[in-house]
Amino acid sequence: MPSESLSIPPSNSRSKAKALLMDLQDEICKGLEEVDGEGKFKEESWERTEGGGGRSRVMQEGKVFEQGGVNFSEVQGDSLPPSIINQKPEAKGHKWFATGTSMVLHPRNPYIPTVHLNYRYFEAGPVWWFGGGADLTPFYPYLSDTRHFHKTLKEACETINPELHKVFKPWCDEYFFLKHRNESRGVGGIFFDYQNGSGSLYKGQNANGVAAIEAKKIGEKSLSWEELFSLAKACGQAFLPSYVPIIKKRNRQSFSDSQRAFQLYRRGRYVEFNLVWDRGTIFGLQTNGRTESILMSLPPLARWEYGFQAPVGSREALLTEVFTKPQDWFADKSLEEKCLPLGAVD
Amino acid sequence: MPSESLSIPPSNSRSKAKALLMDLQDEICKGLEEVDGEGKFKEESWERTEGGGGRSRVMQEGKVFEQGGVNFSEVQGDSLPPSIINQKPEAKGHKWFATGTSMVLHPRNPYIPTVHLNYRYFEAGPVWWFGGGADLTPFYPYLSDTRHFHKTLKEACETINPELHKVFKPWCDEYFFLKHRNESRGVGGIFFDYQNGSGSLYKGQNANGVAAIEAKKIGEKSLSWEELFSLAKACGQAFLPSYVPIIKKRNRQSFSDSQRAFQLYRRGRYVEFNLVWDRGTIFGLQTNGRTESILMSLPPLARWEYGFQAPVGSREALLTEVFTKPQDWFADKSLEEKCLPLGAVD
Repeated sequence: MPSESLSIPPSNSRSKAKALLMDLQDEICKGLEEVDGEGKFKEESWERTEGGGGRSRVMQEGKVFEQGGVNFSEVQGDSLPPSIINQKPEAKGHKWFATGTSMVLHPRNPYIPTVHLNYRYFEAGPVWWFGGGADLTPFYPYLSDTRHFHKTLKEACETINPELHKVFKPWCDEYFFLKHRNESRGVGGIFFDYQNGSGSLYKGQNANGVAAIEAKKIGEKSLSWEELFSLAKACGQAFLPSYVPIIKKRNRQSFSDSQRAFQLYRRGRYVEFNLVWDRGTIFGLQTNGRTESILMSLPPLARWEYGFQAPVGSREALLTEVFTKPQDWFADKSLEEKCLPLGAVD
Repeated sequence: MPSESLSIPPSNSRSKAKALLMDLQDEICKGLEEVDGEGKFKEESWERTEGGGGRSRVMQEGKVFEQGGVNFSEVQGDSLPPSIINQKPEAKGHKWFATGTSMVLHPRNPYIPTVHLNYRYFEAGPVWWFGGGADLTPFYPYLSDTRHFHKTLKEACETINPELHKVFKPWCDEYFFLKHRNESRGVGGIFFDYQNGSGSLYKGQNANGVAAIEAKKIGEKSLSWEELFSLAKACGQAFLPSYVPIIKKRNRQSFSDSQRAFQLYRRGRYVEFNLVWDRGTIFGLQTNGRTESILMSLPPLARWEYGFQAPVGSREALLTEVFTKPQDWFADKSLEEKCLPLGAVD
């Protein structure tokens, strides 16, 4: 059914998507170097034996960023790994093309959240789709920062269709979830995958009720290839405005050794998510991807501590009690009450 | 076929296996506290909603051990996860019982290797098996330490059957392998799984030629439940003699900050193996196991560095060129030549 109603991509779909994602990499690296002030990205170009290649850019030991990686890749292959075939059986037996830009930033200051972005485009025979998103992982969160991040991404989605954000926000909550910890990775953001305009906007494997309803509602409208292209562009370009103001606001807040230790401990959760649950990482490792580029997302330093429990009522406990659970960040007024006593509103 | 020729376990098989593995935990913890001299294990008992429980013991900030965990568990369940059914289809539809002791030690001094041990016993309806092994992960390896570790385990296997070690050694090389890095986790040791005396001694998913031949040869002999019980006992009891002499030999060797940094970097590989490839970890997370106990294996501190390359001819390069590749540690005389110029023989 979905494949019959597919919008037909333009004849230059691959080069158009590729150019969009390369430009996004350029734009983001430029913005991040500006806000860091000292750190510079070093680029490494690489080729893949099976076809394609990429350019990996890494900043190490910057002033703001302890490590940051922004990776562009464009890869082709003859047969798809099971993780994709399970999701998209129509793609089976076709040669495939995938291009994407992904980014993870690990700031030094625990008051600045770690952040991730990924936008990608995929073709295999008759099927194609856009995917991507961005999500924020704070250590010492503020409600105002969280709201700013979500608001900026919401507005970007709404330039394409006013209903999209209602689906992409819970999809993000569902995707960036550590089942073995019963925790979200952070405060979420937006996430979408398999977007081909066929109306099947939400195909997560573990849909929660709310998101499934929203998806059905939006399913009545079809988005064209061009609209989905514009969606990826708008969301990608919204990244710097969603994140840079948070850096500027928090960068001068001083932090203690124990806050640094808590940041490293929470970075352990980031490692756990990426290696155990992240489909992008698994796809990369299964398709003989470039390991160093795939694992660029891992933090420069991380810590595990058996049985760690944040003290009741602490700023650290607030993280897991409020900020690593899916929330309605705008409408839920009880969030202010929970954050206010700990100075975590603004 | 295999299930027809199974030796019948004694009526008290579960309690016998459980007692063996609890005693092993006690013995190992006692020996490790002695050699550490300062650190003590703290115990936490826990119960699992679905049935069973365990006792987790952790040493933190010891003199020798930056972190060490020795975990005993005994769990039951109604239905098995796919990772087990794929390997043992006969177990499908049966209630299951599993008991095991597992250990990972992260010493502070980079000259002392990280080490892992796990022995376990499993029953599900008509099927049962023993599994386990031990493997060594050095950072600044010595050939003599590696040989001592292997020799001690080899002798333990040979008290049961002179052919076993020829299978369990390559099986270990195969199991503790990071495909995405094309590296072994370390210098190996022994590994076996699904041992029920039916003659199918080697059922690894990615058998290399050598090991498959050896397995066939041993397949002519069947081991009884009692012999396999004795195997687990002998190998478990061989752990302290295989490892403690290495600690005593290396403990006073001083190390630099850059050697410490290399140790933390290599600990990152340990995290990658455990979260991406380790069946034990995956089984635990799939069966709603106790996350803190399962992830006790992760190091207290780990580091990732994009694009790290050890200098040519360095002690660090020796690790990946020689000590994270499967080797015939006893017969291959070229190993001495490679290790001698870097002072890595004895």
